[in-house]
Amino acid sequence: MQIVIIGSGNVAYHLAKAFVLNNIPLAQIFGRNEEELRKISGELNIPYSTENLNEADLYIICVSDHSVEDVSKMIIRKNCLVAHTSGSLPKEILVGNYRKASLYPLQTFSKSKTLDYSKIPFFIESENDEDRKTLFSIASKISENVMESTHEKRKYIHLTAVFACNFVNHLFTRAKEISDSQEIPFEYFLPLIEETIQKIYEMDPKAAQTGPAVRNDKRVLQLHEQLLKDESLQIYKTMNHSIQKMYEL
Amino acid sequence: MQIVIIGSGNVAYHLAKAFVLNNIPLAQIFGRNEEELRKISGELNIPYSTENLNEADLYIICVSDHSVEDVSKMIIRKNCLVAHTSGSLPKEILVGNYRKASLYPLQTFSKSKTLDYSKIPFFIESENDEDRKTLFSIASKISENVMESTHEKRKYIHLTAVFACNFVNHLFTRAKEISDSQEIPFEYFLPLIEETIQKIYEMDPKAAQTGPAVRNDKRVLQLHEQLLKDESLQIYKTMNHSIQKMYEL
Repeated sequence: MQIVIIGSGNVAYHLAKAFVLNNIPLAQIFGRNEEELRKISGELNIPYSTENLNEADLYIICVSDHSVEDVSKMIIRKNCLVAHTSGSLPKEILVGNYRKASLYPLQTFSKSKTLDYSKIPFFIESENDEDRKTLFSIASKISENVMESTHEKRKYIHLTAVFACNFVNHLFTRAKEISDSQEIPFEYFLPLIEETIQKIYEMDPKAAQTGPAVRNDKRVLQLHEQLLKDESLQIYKTMNHSIQKMYEL
Repeated sequence: MQIVIIGSGNVAYHLAKAFVLNNIPLAQIFGRNEEELRKISGELNIPYSTENLNEADLYIICVSDHSVEDVSKMIIRKNCLVAHTSGSLPKEILVGNYRKASLYPLQTFSKSKTLDYSKIPFFIESENDEDRKTLFSIASKISENVMESTHEKRKYIHLTAVFACNFVNHLFTRAKEISDSQEIPFEYFLPLIEETIQKIYEMDPKAAQTGPAVRNDKRVLQLHEQLLKDESLQIYKTMNHSIQKMYEL
């Protein structure tokens, strides 16, 4: 089975690496950014091209959501399967006379960070049973955690991930901005962050909530607002309002 | 040295437990909530009282910020050291003719969750060198990570902790609310959350940001807003606005 990955970003790189590490041969990695492609090709020993898209049985499109449709039109072969990796797009966004699918890896990918691919949940959607089996079989070589999902469910999975990952990381960024401003090493906060995460393995996060908002400690809330400004102040107010609404304070 | 802990909440419980586990004898645990005190006393084998505060050399006040001042007035002894454990209050909030101090453990405490006390940073503030040494010596029996801090710095440490811990936990709570609403098991998101945390050990969180806002993916942002309402929608908009401001999008 000839497999081609399209894209040269974080998802393309990690998916290509996961394939190679699990002895699933890739016929080609294809994209626009030659510099990135050359790096990936060099590290993973996969042929690359920016111009001639190989004939393949399976194309996996790993590009930004807004480019998926355009990229999908480049695949002119009919008897093949094309899957995108978007958390939000329907498989019908793909434009061509091929069979359409979605293969969504639920993870945050940065090129410079190694990953244990076996733990990544993969969500699959396809037009028919055979394609489903094909994608299951491939994804199962990478991960222990492969499931089916409708487009409707996948949208909510992606949305949940934005809260639990993207926004959490932004809170770390804003937190570090505050501690940096006072020359407080961010390392001090790592045991606290570690514990915050450990708790969700043992407790419902709703029951684990601590801090001035859930204690309705108006004096501290007011003091903190005086220390903040701009976006951090907005975040502070919005989060506290949400906490106080949830606990009916 | 006679040490008394005042309070029966999460901080009082965990601090008392950390003392006992490290063979620092506690003369008493004192508070208002007899039911909680009886539990702690039973588990840790420390005398408790709701009425008669023992004579002691060191009192550690572990009560809500708004009660610290009132509770501090109950200590009528002069030749003793009194420390509160608040992240925000100055040591001068303590009212009495004793020596005043602050002993701030930077951690999130829930009674039902065990903790590795040795990793908890303790921040100490005192009136004089001798008290500083006393508190250092005690805290160092519990933790590898004991430091001095001014009140000014401690306020910012606490504020940073609210972002990096309390708000992060609330994001998990709102995330779980979304996934629960679609009967998506929250366990699916644990590898993603784990990776989000692992990244901050290796990268600056600002460089690790992923997701639709930092990609300026307007289609996805709009789609997600349609799936949300009320406080979660407010959080979504506020966080994305903050991300886009930070990366000048």
